[in-house]
Amino acid sequence: MNQIIYVSGMTCGHCVNSVTDELSKIAGVEKVEVDLTTGKVEIQTNHEIEKTKVEEAIKEAGYELN
Amino acid sequence: MNQIIYVSGMTCGHCVNSVTDELSKIAGVEKVEVDLTTGKVEIQTNHEIEKTKVEEAIKEAGYELN
Repeated sequence: MNQIIYVSGMTCGHCVNSVTDELSKIAGVEKVEVDLTTGKVEIQTNHEIEKTKVEEAIKEAGYELN
Repeated sequence: MNQIIYVSGMTCGHCVNSVTDELSKIAGVEKVEVDLTTGKVEIQTNHEIEKTKVEEAIKEAGYELN
């Protein structure tokens, strides 16, 4: 599956890594692609991930869902 | 001693940490204070550090001396 979210507050490659790392910890997440410029994040999963888990991961990384 | 440099390209707390970490590795460096907004970096040392060593550390962190 493919879930798309938008994350605000990322400013550099470190931020991209933090978001990628936190999302990758969620069970079922197979791949994360982050576009720093737009804040668009594509999450490839093997089943649908609850929005709250995604939100928590983004918060944990230090950013916010748009 | 106190050496002051200006670093460009830092955008967030991760960047500040990278610069601080790399500078702290230089022998003689006792304290590093980074102002993200201005790019001003104060390096407290127990002897004068060569400019080239500082430059290398900033490059290693992924930024540039102003």
